Amino acid sequence: MRRTRFDEWPCPIARTTDLIGDWWTPLVLREAFTGRRRFEEFQEALGIPRAVLAARLDRLVTEGLLERRQYEDHPPRSEYRLTPKGLAFWDVLAAMWRWGDDWLFPEEQPPLQLVDRATGAEIRPCVVDEATGEPLDVRALRVCARPRPD
Amino acid sequence: MRRTRFDEWPCPIARTTDLIGDWWTPLVLREAFTGRRRFEEFQEALGIPRAVLAARLDRLVTEGLLERRQYEDHPPRSEYRLTPKGLAFWDVLAAMWRWGDDWLFPEEQPPLQLVDRATGAEIRPCVVDEATGEPLDVRALRVCARPRPD
Repeated sequence: MRRTRFDEWPCPIARTTDLIGDWWTPLVLREAFTGRRRFEEFQEALGIPRAVLAARLDRLVTEGLLERRQYEDHPPRSEYRLTPKGLAFWDVLAAMWRWGDDWLFPEEQPPLQLVDRATGAEIRPCVVDEATGEPLDVRALRVCARPRPD
Repeated sequence: MRRTRFDEWPCPIARTTDLIGDWWTPLVLREAFTGRRRFEEFQEALGIPRAVLAARLDRLVTEGLLERRQYEDHPPRSEYRLTPKGLAFWDVLAAMWRWGDDWLFPEEQPPLQLVDRATGAEIRPCVVDEATGEPLDVRALRVCARPRPD
C-alpha cells in the first residue's frame, strides 16, 4: 500500500515524520553516529535486510543527511558520512534517547548510558527553549502562522 | 511483511523507534497536544484512514501514552487524553520540530512557528545536557554500559 506522504505538509513535525517514519531509519542514523561508514558495517551492526539498508541509505543520501563517497574503484565501494544536516539530526535521536530512557524500561535499569568522553560523567539530553534555557512547557505554547516578512 | 521489532533492544533510541516508526503515530500525538481528544477530531484533522487511526490509538493506549475514557454510554463513545508518559513525549516532537524547521524548508520560510501563549515570543526548542545547559556535542560523548548498582 502506498503511504500518505507528509514531506510537503507545512508542519516540520510532519516533514520529519516522513523521513524517520521509514522503519529502521533512526537506527541507521544511530549507527552512523557511532562511526560506521560502510554498507557491511551497517548491515552487521543492525542485522538489517540488505535491500532495506540499501533503500534507507539511498534515501538518506537523497535527503542530504549522508554523503556517499567512493573509497575503492575496483570493485567500486562506497562509504557514507554524515553531512551537517545529518549531524544536526543528533538532537532528535538524543530526545528519543532521553524519553526512551525515562519511559521504556519500566522494570529494569536501562542497560546503556550516554557519557562525556573526557570526564565519564553521564549526559542526560533535555529539551529547552533556546532563548531562556528553560524546559518547554507544552501548555504555555501554541502553533501559529509565521508572520510574513515586511 | 512482519517488521523486525525493536521494543526489547537495549537502546532507548531503538525502543522509541519501535513506537514512532509506526506511520502516522507522531502526527496522532501532535494532534493530541493541540487538544484533540475524540476519534472524529483526530480523523478530520489528519485525513487518516479510520482503520489506521484506530490501530494507532489502540497502541498508544496500550503503551501508556494515551488514556481512553468513555464520555458517553449510549452509544458508547471514548476520548483519548495524554498521560504523563504521553505529555513527556512532547520533547521528542519538539526536537523533530526544530530539526525540520531548520533543515526541511530549503526554499521557503517555514509557514508555522511555536510561540509563547503569553508573550507571543517565538520558541525554538534546543537540546542540551541537563547538567550543564550546554548544547550536545556528539563528538564529545559515547554510549557505554551503565555500571551496575552496588
